[in-house]
Formats: sequence, structure tokens, C-alpha cells
Amino acid sequence: MNDFVLDYDRPTRIGLSEAIFCAGKTAAQIDAIIADAENRTGLLLTRLDPANYARLETRRLLDYDPLSRTAFLGPVAPPATAEASIAIVTAGTSDLSVAQEAARTLQFNGAGFTRIADVGVAGLWRLLSRLEELKPMPVIIAVAGMDAALPTVLGGLVPGSIIAVPTSIGYGVATGGHAALNAILSSCAPGILAVNIDNGYGAACAALRILKALSSPSPSWGGSQLGKSQ
Amino acid sequence: MNDFVLDYDRPTRIGLSEAIFCAGKTAAQIDAIIADAENRTGLLLTRLDPANYARLETRRLLDYDPLSRTAFLGPVAPPATAEASIAIVTAGTSDLSVAQEAARTLQFNGAGFTRIADVGVAGLWRLLSRLEELKPMPVIIAVAGMDAALPTVLGGLVPGSIIAVPTSIGYGVATGGHAALNAILSSCAPGILAVNIDNGYGAACAALRILKALSSPSPSWGGSQLGKSQ
Amino acid sequence: MNDFVLDYDRPTRIGLSEAIFCAGKTAAQIDAIIADAENRTGLLLTRLDPANYARLETRRLLDYDPLSRTAFLGPVAPPATAEASIAIVTAGTSDLSVAQEAARTLQFNGAGFTRIADVGVAGLWRLLSRLEELKPMPVIIAVAGMDAALPTVLGGLVPGSIIAVPTSIGYGVATGGHAALNAILSSCAPGILAVNIDNGYGAACAALRILKALSSPSPSWGGSQLGKSQ
Amino acid sequence: MNDFVLDYDRPTRIGLSEAIFCAGKTAAQIDAIIADAENRTGLLLTRLDPANYARLETRRLLDYDPLSRTAFLGPVAPPATAEASIAIVTAGTSDLSVAQEAARTLQFNGAGFTRIADVGVAGLWRLLSRLEELKPMPVIIAVAGMDAALPTVLGGLVPGSIIAVPTSIGYGVATGGHAALNAILSSCAPGILAVNIDNGYGAACAALRILKALSSPSPSWGGSQLGKSQ
Amino acid sequence: MNDFVLDYDRPTRIGLSEAIFCAGKTAAQIDAIIADAENRTGLLLTRLDPANYARLETRRLLDYDPLSRTAFLGPVAPPATAEASIAIVTAGTSDLSVAQEAARTLQFNGAGFTRIADVGVAGLWRLLSRLEELKPMPVIIAVAGMDAALPTVLGGLVPGSIIAVPTSIGYGVATGGHAALNAILSSCAPGILAVNIDNGYGAACAALRILKALSSPSPSWGGSQLGKSQ
Amino acid sequence: MNDFVLDYDRPTRIGLSEAIFCAGKTAAQIDAIIADAENRTGLLLTRLDPANYARLETRRLLDYDPLSRTAFLGPVAPPATAEASIAIVTAGTSDLSVAQEAARTLQFNGAGFTRIADVGVAGLWRLLSRLEELKPMPVIIAVAGMDAALPTVLGGLVPGSIIAVPTSIGYGVATGGHAALNAILSSCAPGILAVNIDNGYGAACAALRILKALSSPSPSWGGSQLGKSQ
Amino acid sequence: MNDFVLDYDRPTRIGLSEAIFCAGKTAAQIDAIIADAENRTGLLLTRLDPANYARLETRRLLDYDPLSRTAFLGPVAPPATAEASIAIVTAGTSDLSVAQEAARTLQFNGAGFTRIADVGVAGLWRLLSRLEELKPMPVIIAVAGMDAALPTVLGGLVPGSIIAVPTSIGYGVATGGHAALNAILSSCAPGILAVNIDNGYGAACAALRILKALSSPSPSWGGSQLGKSQ
Amino acid sequence: MNDFVLDYDRPTRIGLSEAIFCAGKTAAQIDAIIADAENRTGLLLTRLDPANYARLETRRLLDYDPLSRTAFLGPVAPPATAEASIAIVTAGTSDLSVAQEAARTLQFNGAGFTRIADVGVAGLWRLLSRLEELKPMPVIIAVAGMDAALPTVLGGLVPGSIIAVPTSIGYGVATGGHAALNAILSSCAPGILAVNIDNGYGAACAALRILKALSSPSPSWGGSQLGKSQ
Repeated sequence: MNDFVLDYDRPTRIGLSEAIFCAGKTAAQIDAIIADAENRTGLLLTRLDPANYARLETRRLLDYDPLSRTAFLGPVAPPATAEASIAIVTAGTSDLSVAQEAARTLQFNGAGFTRIADVGVAGLWRLLSRLEELKPMPVIIAVAGMDAALPTVLGGLVPGSIIAVPTSIGYGVATGGHAALNAILSSCAPGILAVNIDNGYGAACAALRILKALSSPSPSWGGSQLGKSQ
Repeated sequence: MNDFVLDYDRPTRIGLSEAIFCAGKTAAQIDAIIADAENRTGLLLTRLDPANYARLETRRLLDYDPLSRTAFLGPVAPPATAEASIAIVTAGTSDLSVAQEAARTLQFNGAGFTRIADVGVAGLWRLLSRLEELKPMPVIIAVAGMDAALPTVLGGLVPGSIIAVPTSIGYGVATGGHAALNAILSSCAPGILAVNIDNGYGAACAALRILKALSSPSPSWGGSQLGKSQ
Repeated sequence: MNDFVLDYDRPTRIGLSEAIFCAGKTAAQIDAIIADAENRTGLLLTRLDPANYARLETRRLLDYDPLSRTAFLGPVAPPATAEASIAIVTAGTSDLSVAQEAARTLQFNGAGFTRIADVGVAGLWRLLSRLEELKPMPVIIAVAGMDAALPTVLGGLVPGSIIAVPTSIGYGVATGGHAALNAILSSCAPGILAVNIDNGYGAACAALRILKALSSPSPSWGGSQLGKSQ
Repeated sequence: MNDFVLDYDRPTRIGLSEAIFCAGKTAAQIDAIIADAENRTGLLLTRLDPANYARLETRRLLDYDPLSRTAFLGPVAPPATAEASIAIVTAGTSDLSVAQEAARTLQFNGAGFTRIADVGVAGLWRLLSRLEELKPMPVIIAVAGMDAALPTVLGGLVPGSIIAVPTSIGYGVATGGHAALNAILSSCAPGILAVNIDNGYGAACAALRILKALSSPSPSWGGSQLGKSQ
Repeated sequence: MNDFVLDYDRPTRIGLSEAIFCAGKTAAQIDAIIADAENRTGLLLTRLDPANYARLETRRLLDYDPLSRTAFLGPVAPPATAEASIAIVTAGTSDLSVAQEAARTLQFNGAGFTRIADVGVAGLWRLLSRLEELKPMPVIIAVAGMDAALPTVLGGLVPGSIIAVPTSIGYGVATGGHAALNAILSSCAPGILAVNIDNGYGAACAALRILKALSSPSPSWGGSQLGKSQ
Repeated sequence: MNDFVLDYDRPTRIGLSEAIFCAGKTAAQIDAIIADAENRTGLLLTRLDPANYARLETRRLLDYDPLSRTAFLGPVAPPATAEASIAIVTAGTSDLSVAQEAARTLQFNGAGFTRIADVGVAGLWRLLSRLEELKPMPVIIAVAGMDAALPTVLGGLVPGSIIAVPTSIGYGVATGGHAALNAILSSCAPGILAVNIDNGYGAACAALRILKALSSPSPSWGGSQLGKSQ
Repeated sequence: MNDFVLDYDRPTRIGLSEAIFCAGKTAAQIDAIIADAENRTGLLLTRLDPANYARLETRRLLDYDPLSRTAFLGPVAPPATAEASIAIVTAGTSDLSVAQEAARTLQFNGAGFTRIADVGVAGLWRLLSRLEELKPMPVIIAVAGMDAALPTVLGGLVPGSIIAVPTSIGYGVATGGHAALNAILSSCAPGILAVNIDNGYGAACAALRILKALSSPSPSWGGSQLGKSQ
Repeated sequence: MNDFVLDYDRPTRIGLSEAIFCAGKTAAQIDAIIADAENRTGLLLTRLDPANYARLETRRLLDYDPLSRTAFLGPVAPPATAEASIAIVTAGTSDLSVAQEAARTLQFNGAGFTRIADVGVAGLWRLLSRLEELKPMPVIIAVAGMDAALPTVLGGLVPGSIIAVPTSIGYGVATGGHAALNAILSSCAPGILAVNIDNGYGAACAALRILKALSSPSPSWGGSQLGKSQ
């Protein structure tokens, strides 16, 4: 009997592909999951570190990316449109691996996106020079560690959804990313959303939930009147 | 000279009405803000507790709700459509004041919503009996305290965006809502989003950011193909 | 003189076999304990990691299991009955090593049990499909990490004792298992019990304390009237 | 429409009466719940502080106890047997209100119990003089604050189930009961179980789950052989 | 014998007037200190809340300010120059009482300053419109709560010393000001300095230490070459 | 396209050279940054551990110091004056690597400094014997771990600015430097400033901000009258 | 039956009088304890706040001190000798109530002591001027809040036992006394001992344990050779 | 110039030999300290792990003990008397390395002691069987991890000074020893003293401070009357 039960029905139910969190799993356990899934569904594997990947017997089946520690099992659909609906914004170079986990998750689920790197607000001109690209974006994934001031500044400048991902890079009181997380949750800018520290995968899933609604025939909600009561 | 600078341009810039966080402000400070805004813009006042409200000289100008501790200055636009795009879901009766803060924020910004109360997962049948109402919702605001298991269960059942609001009701390790917040951020369900503890206002603002995108002419993103690569 | 004092009287006094917590002990210390016990009593060794096991001179005397990091010294009694009174339930594959520590402790103490794996509530159907097996169980050991929503959902569905074991798998706010522990302690479901993070051994001992009472000639407590006052 | 959904089926499903956690609820909300329940079920109300109780319009329907802040709606069944299966043990006088919450919960659910007060281990003779009463108990609810050493000492002396309730009495590092909780979870004695700080209600519910199994026709589990492999 | 020993030599030794922290002192204790100091030195009293002030027998000797909870005993020297060397910048109205404690401390010590209010970075234009005033300032005291992003943005725009004061206004993870403090200490901008939460007095004292050096005949340090090696 | 955007304008804007925080960056990323900067600006690299340094292809361009884990790219200006305006004071030998990070940052920016080592206050005579050197210093960087009592004692003895750097050396409650940080922030001495744990770089930057003001033609602030109101 | 069990044998067993911790006890409970003790033993009551004292029916039997919130039941022995063996040292006026709890505990147990107030190390001369009094003291109780640097400085200057009591006075990171406690536990001075925050009673009991040994006929331990090996 | 300043006067001033904390020091730094001390004083080296010891050029001068990670430089005086005044008591085998650090510190300072191992209170008979040895001890160093209930039980049974050393062995909420430390500080037994987690050295220094007083000609304090007022 298997020690796992794959959720083959998940794409139908919630519109997201099945994903496997590999931290804490042995190579043998991951191999068994891949064997089970191989001819039935695609799989996104996250937190698969290079050492564990190298031990997999099924590794030839995978499209592996070491920076994000993600792997794809099965084909990846090309984005339906050329134009991106999501921007992945990073405050510093150290945040790139988390941003890449988000990017790979979007890619595997067939969503287009663009990247804007190294726009931390300690050098404000970097962000302001990219503002016109950011304003029309329906969804922005903002990856930021240390004091995580980027999502707050963004939140006051653009109307789109801002999904902030705190990162664990840092030292002293920033160790582990809690300072960044708490700054995001305490943001003075209205409507900033948070996921767990380093959770690029979760941020991408949340973005996909929003995009799914954008592409559905929806009730004609009176959005154009937003803010008009004032 | 004023000690405050209202952001009259905010609705244009980010699509949300100006709001005033009243905790830590004196009645005199709030009165001055209201006087400044009175003939120029609407205002949403949050965290205005009844004692402070009673001390306001400008209170006759306000539409005040004590449960949510919110007040409106200025007219409220009726929702553009009869059909709600947002569900506000609560796990227990103790979460109602936070849910009400979200509801009032949506109402002031002209967005329709529906409420589904007391569907905590310790009595799972209560949630399952409302599932068909929840499945088509583009956005669900899930308000839950203590162990906050509701957003996780929801996240596995519905495809919409789930904005989880941890609440501070509880005692012992639940005191202050940190256990609820951490459970939400650690959710096994993919793509759950968090705001600060008791931040019904922030959850509503995040929902409004999503709705604004839903109602805009957007690039025809290939959402119908989401999850199809598997 | 020895630096340790084994508790040979423990089985008589509290009905549980003597156990040795090996973390923080040198191989030489563990060897000395085993030599002392060898002809006098059985021993359960916990937290004996493979590297330390490999260094033991007495390792040929042991029945070692690397997944759970446990070893048996001495014979293991077969369960008295074919029917299990305990279910060990896991939310995800990453929780299996903790579940295995519980299983090995039960096995060494002669108690029957069954396992139900990968029934985390983010895919609720997995749990619901096993519900009929779980309802008659006197004791359920529920092993769950991250947001640990499983014990709460179970607690609303079954009447048996639920001993919840939070696990340390996770990252960000879930690091170390505190989020899982606090969610369990804050559970909205009535009567959920907690042990320390990753403490499969302790959960099994608690289950054995309950089973011992079940098998004793007890006062005919009016349990059939439970809940009848309403 | 109501903002609450009572769980009238709970006694059948899990064998525990419906209970209402009153902290964070207004008197009006509690009155509405009582009115809904009045002719259909009994209710246990917890965390109903005297000021809130005094404001209830339905208070004449309740059997209220200020020490434990609990109230009963509806009749209370007498215990089925004269002999108690549960002991409620307290370390100090300051723990009595939490112990009383446990006692009232047991009473409302028709279970017999005995109390043993002020047996904190800083005066060890007090506990040792009551040991013969404690040894045969199937279940002991041990209420202890500050360093909570009582459950550990008990756990080494008696074979029954020990449900430990940390209390929040104390100051400095003991403030809020976290030191007590962590001491309990870290106990050197095997098989100690914990509930949330000050959660007398939860401890009683857990005890009721065990008692329910004791009184059911169960598989003849080989408990008499427990510990015999050694 | 007195229970206190005033530090009459402090102004000579470190250039700051003696100050009394009144929290935790009884009115009688404060009266005794004032009586001792009256004819010998000036005193700055901090954390003197209105209720305690009203109980002082010596209150007629004091210049009291309720917003900052400070009082002056003795004359206040006018600033030596018309031009301010210090700016006190606040992110929101709720930070004004802390800013006022800093202002009163500067005033009592004879230092000039200017105030710039409500320039939180969620409305970035408010800060940018005041930038030319801020650039030449040798010292900026930046008072900010919640996510405290203001000091980071400032630190990338101006060359002066930035003393950041986190404030305790906020709720949820912002409660108590720790999120603000940690964001400041983790700032991506180089050379931001922190004082304790709500410590407007300490920030002012630190500013005074810098100003004292500015006004002293100092070694001609090669500051004009700063940054020239690149 | 690069994943980084160097801030070549920083020296002009805030008077500090561009610096790169290397923790969390791969050798390839650091090489790319150095290549971009090589002919355009100097760079200070911090948190470059020896293993990462050894992997750099550009390492021949760098002046590397393993104790402080810093490297210089480009020429270092000699201090403008022989006389130091900054003292770097350490409480114990274990604090030297953090002190060295501060020293290297000052050196790279052309500021003179002196070092005073091992003057922890548990051997008070060591500090008192160096007091005359410390009194005239405009800025003192005080590096201290464990209980960090040094800055408090210093703060009562000297008039200059005191920038305290808590260090992470220690064990038990001192692990990670939080005890040291909190002691510094809670200092009874007025006007002590803090930077993040182990942040020698930040302390030096803050010192440079002060020195820059010292060397500028400033308004003749009435510092000589400081403390004269008493 | 009583809910309490007094420990009449405690003075014989451990040499300390029975004491009652009154926080969390009702006036009725305290009255019952006093009635039980009245003719059999003396009692020290701690944490008896003025409001609770005023409600006691037995209050005429007590010698009550509001500053320390302690009361004596029964006679107090005069100290055996005129010369004090214990010094109670306070860093600031705010620490006096905790120091007084220690003083009252010593007084009730018949031990002589002296007080030295307001010698915090931010004004080092205050402590140094009292050093000759402190050097010969066998035991020093050092009461200090905020950064609690006093015990460390003392520990390097005097040979006696130093029992440090952190106090909860303070704000921001000092709130609750944890910063003070951790500074004490992390002290660089060798052999500093800690009790819980605000635990003047416990510090006095520890001092009494030492004094008891000092006055007993003890083995002639070679203390005069201490430190002679070096 | 040296980066260190040895405290050669310490034995005279406070009666304890100079000691060097080696964690965070390089082998070269330690070698320099030893060279400086070699012909002038003895030294106790603590936290010298085997790898660092093996790198020392001066290691032939040292008496090294790997279990406690301590080394002696210089001769060790034999205890002055055959009879021990100090007992070192351990709760479990995992605490032995910390106990050994205390033992080596006592040995180097010429103090006699005895050891009593593995008397954790989960097997209470082990402690009770050694009670007669413990009762006359002036000082007991009690080393205990996890829930650290041993010092509390001891504190109610013996009159001597109890210096409790929490240890960091454990997992989950016991990780790092904070649960043990907090249990000790919250002890219900009067007069228990704490040192930092794993600080065997500090506990021994505190014991030496007490012993020094025991061996001095002291005022004849009325210890025989302790507890007689009741």
C-alpha cells in the first residue's frame, strides 16, 4: 500500500496542478510518487534540493531547475497570450531564488509573466523608473527580505493586487524572514497580501487563482465605479 | 499647520478611497481631519471605538457602526450589480466584528458581497452545506480565529481567491491571533493569502484590488487552459 | 560507578517499558546502558540516529529501524488481539517518520494499531473516504505538520480520543513545528490532546495509558449516557 | 438570518454536548443562541464572565457558576455510578478556577469525578500522601501553573492517563502560562498529554472521550500484557 | 535618607541635562526628587502621565505638556541659532506624541528643530515634496510605526544622520512596535540608527550628542572626500 | 539582462560608497556585479565568506580580509587627517570580527579611526584606564555581545555619539545576540544608538553620516550652550 | 474540606517560613488560609495588592506594607546580630517596590540587611562611591530593570554572592523585564545568579539559604585557598 | 598591540581565577592569550571544542577534558578538605557534559564536590534514595533539561542553596533549553537560583562565591533562628 494519495482531481476542483513538497521526503518516497503519477498527470515538485534530485531514479523524467529547486514532470503548456498579466518584482539579488520558484510555478500552469529585478526602495529611483510598466499589471508578486519596504511603497503607487513574499535572507533580527513578514502584514498601504516566508510557490498559486477569475465569464461587477463615492 | 496630509489623489492612483486609522488619534485630531475632508472627499474611518466616536464634534456627519468600529463620511454608492462577487465567511460568532469591518469597507467602496456565517470546520457539515454557493465566488474573505483551519479546508474545495483574516479571539497560545495567523501562513492548501490579525479593512481592500481587475478590459489571458498541462 | 540509573520498576509502576532517549548521549554511554539492561529488561531506544547506531558496540543486540530512529532491545510481544484499537493517521508523507516512532513504540509494548496515511484536509475527500474506519477507534494518533488542521476536522467527526502530534516539517513560520503545535492547542474541536513536536513516542505512551484502562476491569462508568442530558 | 449555526447533532456524532465559548460574544448574541437552543438541546456556556452574565436577558434559564465562569442550560444528568473514574488534581489554590471549569464540564456531561487540591510538588509529602487514591484512576486531570512540575512527578508514579492543564497564574517568565505549557510538553515522564493554557473545558472533553471508550463494548485488547515483553 | 541620587554632574560630564523617568514612580517619589532639584538644577521629566501629574504637590513648578507626557523644571534656554539642525519627521498622525517627546527634549536642551508631519511612504508624493528641506539636515529623527518603511526610503535619499524611532501604535503583528523596530534594524538603507520603541527622549539625546560635536572645534576630518575613493 | 542594478549615484546622493551584501548570492552573481562595476566605481563587499571568495573568478581584483569577510574593489583613499574622529571599542575578543567589519568600512570610505580592545565592564578598570582617550571622541562605535553592558557604562561617562553594535556571540539566552540588542535598546544611559546584531558595516555607515556633517560648513548651532539651561 | 494544604513543616525541612502567593486568590480563599494558620504558624503573604487586602476579613491580624504588597501574620523575630550580612542594592527608584519585597521577606525571617539605593551604572560614580561598603558583604541582592547592567559591573568588583532580580519597569523591548533578565543571565561577570522577574521574595529566600549555611557549623572548607592555584 | 587584556587581578578582587571563553575565538587568538598568561597566572579555558583544541600550538601546556570542553593552564590545587561542600546533581545522562563543566571549574579553583547522577523526578525513587546525602549540603548545583522539574522538587526537600543549570538537550518546545530555564525561574519552591542555559561554569563560580563566604570569619548571623518566628 502506498504511503501517499495523489490528488488527481485537484486541477478540476481548484484549477491548480498537483504539486509535491519534497523537503522531508526521501528520494525513494519521491520516486514512488513520480512513478504513480507518470502516466496520469503532470506534477510540480518544489523544495527539491540538488542533492535529493541527484539521488532520484526517476530524475530523467524531470525538467529540473536548481536555483528554484523545482522540477516539472510532464509537458508545460505555452502561455495563452503574449501579454503578461503578472509581474514578479524583486528587491535585491538575494531574493531571486524565491522569485524563480514563483516563476516556475506560473510557467508550469501556463501563465505569462514578466520580471523586474533589484528595485529595492533604498534606491528609490530604480523602482520609480519602472513604474509605468507596473501600473497596468493586474497582479504583482513582490519578493522582498530584510525590512521589506518594497510592497508598502508599491501599494501606494499601483492599483493591482500585490502578493508580497517575505524572504529569509538577512541576519540578526532579520534572521529567518520574520521581520520582513511582519513589516508586510503591518503595511501602511491598503490591501497588501502576504504568503509564508520564501513561499514563491504559494504566491504564484494565489496569482493563478486571481487570473482564473479574470479569464472567466464573470458577473459585470461595477468596478469602474470603485472609489467613486468619494 | 496641519499635522496630517490627506491623500485626496488616492482613489485615482490606486482605486481605493482614503481611509483613516483612528486608534491612537485623539478626538480633536479626528475632528480636524474630518473638517479638512468634509467638502472634498469621502472618508472611511476605521478603529473608531464608541468612546472616541462619542467625543467627536463632527459625529453628526458620520454614518457610524459600533460592531465594526467604522464610520463613513460622505455618500455610499450602491453596488453596480445585484450579483455578489465576494463572500465573507466566518468560522464563529466571535469573528463577526472583524467580518463586519470588511463588509463596511466593501460597502463604502461600492462592491457587492454576501455573508456566510458560523461554518467553522469543527462541525464540517456546516461548511459542506454551503459549498455550492462558495464554488463560483471569485473572491472569498475567510475570517477565522484560534486554529484557523477554515481557510485550509476551503482552499482545497474552491478555485477562487481566498483572503484569510486571522482573528485575535482566543486564550492561551491563541492569545492575540498569532496561532491563527501562523496556521494560515503554513496552510497546506495552495494559494491562501493572509492579512494582519483582525484586519478586515485590509482584506476588503485586497478584494477590491482583485475586483477592479475583474471589471477592467484585460488581456485575454489563457485562464481556460489553467491546469491543462497535466 | 554508573552515570545512569535504569528504572527497572517502571513497567510495574506505570505499565510502560523503560525507554532511553539517545539524543545527546555518546555511543559509549548508550553501550553502557545496554550492557546494564541486557539480561534484566527490554529497552526501547528512541532518537538513535543512524550514525550513532553505527558506532554502537552492542548494535548486534538491537532491532533497529532507521526511519523512526528507534531500536528494540529484547523480545517484542505480539499484540493480544487481531483487532486494532489505535489508528495512526498522517496528514502528509513528510510526517511518516514521526508516525513510525509512534508505531514502533506501540509494537514494542504489544499493542495493535492500523495506519491511515496522507489524509490531510487540503484534499478533504481523502479523509472523508476513510471516515468509517476511524469512527469506532478508541484512540487516534493524528500526526500533522504545517497548519495541522487535520486534528480539528477529525475532532468534529469522531468520538474517540485524539492525540495530536505536531511535526517540525515546514519553513518560514512553520519552522520547528510551533505553528502546528499552537494550532492543535487552539483547536475549535473539543477535547483534542497534544504532545510535544515530533514526539511520536510520547503519543504512543499516552495511547498505551488509555488502552491499559480499556483492558482493566473498571467501574461501570455511565458512558452510555454521555451527552444525554441535552 | 442567524449569525450562528448550532451543532445539534454533536452529541450523537462525537458524544459531547454542544458548548458555547462566550468570550468575544455580546450579551445579545448569547441571548440569541440560548433562545435558539432552549427547547431543543442542553448547552454548556464557558468563559461567561460575571459582567456579561449579568447583562443576559435569558440568565434566569441558566445555572451559573462564577468561579469557573460556566453556565448550564438544561438539566444535568446524575453520574451513572457512584465511583469516580476521573481525578482533578490541582497544584495550588490559584489553579482552582480552571479546575472548576473542568469539573463543571464533567458534571454537565454526567461523569463522576473526585478532587484532590493543593498537592504541588514543592511540598512533595502532600502529593505522596494522596498517592494510593490516584494510582487506580483511569484518568487524571492535573491542573498546574508556574513550573508545572506536578504532571511530571505524577507521570512517573501512576499508570492512568494524565491530561495536564497549564494555568496562566504567575508573573515574569510565567506570565500567561507558557512556561507551564512548555514544561508539560517537555516532560521527562512518558505519555503526558497537554491542552491549551487554562483550558479546563478541553481537558474535561478529552477525559470524556476516554471514558466513553471505557464504557463501550470494546475489542478485548491485550492490555494485561502491556509491558510484559521486557 | 533619600531613595534617589540625582546626577547633578551629568551636564558637565556628557552634555545632557538630568532627566527623570516617571513611569513606575509614585507622586510622592517624584515630589521628593523635584524638591531636591529645585534650587540646584533643571530637570526634564518624561513618562509623566496626566493622572500622576495631577497628584504632584510640586506641579506648580512644572511646565507640563500632556501630549508628550513631559514636564520641565527650571528655565529653558532659547535655541542659539534661528536655523534648525534637526528635523523631526513623522509617518502618521498616531506618531505625534512620540515626536513631541523628542521635540520637548530638544527644546529643554536648547536645540532648534523643525517638524515635517505625515509623510509616510504609502503616499510617496508626500515625502518627495519635502525632500529639498530634508537633504541639508545634519540630523533627522524619523518617527514611524507599523511597517516603518519611512526611515529606509529616507536613508536612500538624504546624507544626514537618521535616528529612527519605532512606535507602538498598531495591532496584530504590529502590537507593541516590534515589527517597526525590526524593520528599522533590518533596513536595506545604509547607516540607519535605532532607539527603543516610543523612545522619543532617547532619539533627542542622541541628536544632541551629534549636535554637540558639530558645534565643537573638531579636528578637520576629511569629510569632503567621503565616497571619493570609488 | 542583469538581475541587479548598481546604485552608481549613491556616493553623490548620500555620501556613502556602493556596497554589496554577499550572503545569499552565488559566486557567479557576485562576479557579474564586480564585472559591471570594475571600470566605473569602487565597491565594498560585505559578508563574503572565505569559501565564496575562493570561488570568485574576479577575486584577483579584490583586497580581501577574511576576519571581517569584507573585500574592496578599487582604490582606498587615505584618511584626510592624522587624527581619528572615531573610536571602535570592543568588549571582548569574540567581538573583533564585527569590529573589523566596521573598521574596513571606515577605511574604504577614507575615515580615520582608532581601536580600543577588550574593555568589557566585568573588569571595569580596563575601561576606566582608557577613558581619557574616549572622552574627546565625536563618535564611538561600541561592539559588545552577551549582556552588552559596555555601551551603558560608556554612555554615562562620555559626551560623544555612541553607536552600539550587539554581537551574536554567546549561548543560551544570549544566542543570536538578541539579549545584547535588547539591553542596548533598554539602556539607562541617555542617547545610545543601536544597529542590527553583528552589523559592523551599518555602524560605520552611521558614523560616516555624522562625520560628513562634522566636516561640512554647518549653521553655527549653539552647541556650546547645551545643558546650560539647568 | 479545604482547598489548600499549608506546609507547617516547611521551616523545619528547608528553614524558610511558609509563604502564600496571593495573586489569583480571592479574599475569601486568603481569609480561610489565615484562619487555618492563625494559631499554628507565622505566614508571609506576598503579591497581596491593596484592593485585595482591603477586602480581607482577617486584615486586622496582618502587618501590611503596600509598597511591597506583603503582609506578616505572626511575630517577627529581631535580627540575631546588629551587623548585616546582606545588601539590597537598587539601580533606580522604580525598582524600590521589588527591593522592598526582598527586604520584608528578610525581615520576617529574622535576617539583617542594609540598603543601597539608586546606584545604576549609567552614573558610575554613584556605585563606586559605595564600593567599600559592598566588598565585604557575603550576599548582595541586586535589583535592576531595563538593561540591568548593574549586576555585571558589581560582579567584577566584589567577591560575594550576587543574586540579581530583574524588574519589569520599562517600555518597548524592556516591557515585562525580559531584556533585564536575559542581560543578567548573559552576564560577562562570573557567577551572577538570577531569579524570576520582580521576584524579590525569591531572591530573599535564596539569600536566606546562603545565610543559613554561613551560620551552621560547617566543614572547614578551604576557602582561604580559593584562587590560589593561579 | 594585543587585542586582549587579561584580568590578572581578578583572583584578588573577586576570588575567582581568570577564565577564557573560547567560543568565537580563533586558535591563534587563544594561543596568544595562553602565551601571555603562561608565566604569570593560571587560566581556565571553557567552550574549547576538540577541533579548536587540536589546532592550538600551545596545547601541550593544557590539561584538556573533551566532555566538558574545558582546559587548565597551570597547576590545580587539591581541595583543602576531604569533605565536599557542593553536590552536583544531574537529572539525566544527557546533562553530564554541563555538569562536568561545573565540576572542572570547581576542581580548578580548589573546591571539593560530590556527584549524584540520573535522579530525574520522573522516577522519583531515584532522588528520594539519595536524599540523606543531599540534605546537609550547603550548595547543590542541579543540572536539568527538558521540563527541569528536579530543582523544584529538591527545593522543597533540602535547606541548602540550589543553583539550577538548565540544559539545552531536548526537541520541539524544549529546543535550546528555554523551557527548562523558564520552569526553573517559575519554580514553586522558594529560593531557587538560575544561571544561563548550559552554563556549568557560571554555576560553579556562583558556588565558589558562596563557599568563600562560608570559609571566612563572618559575623555570627542568627541563622539558627531562621524560621523561628513562626
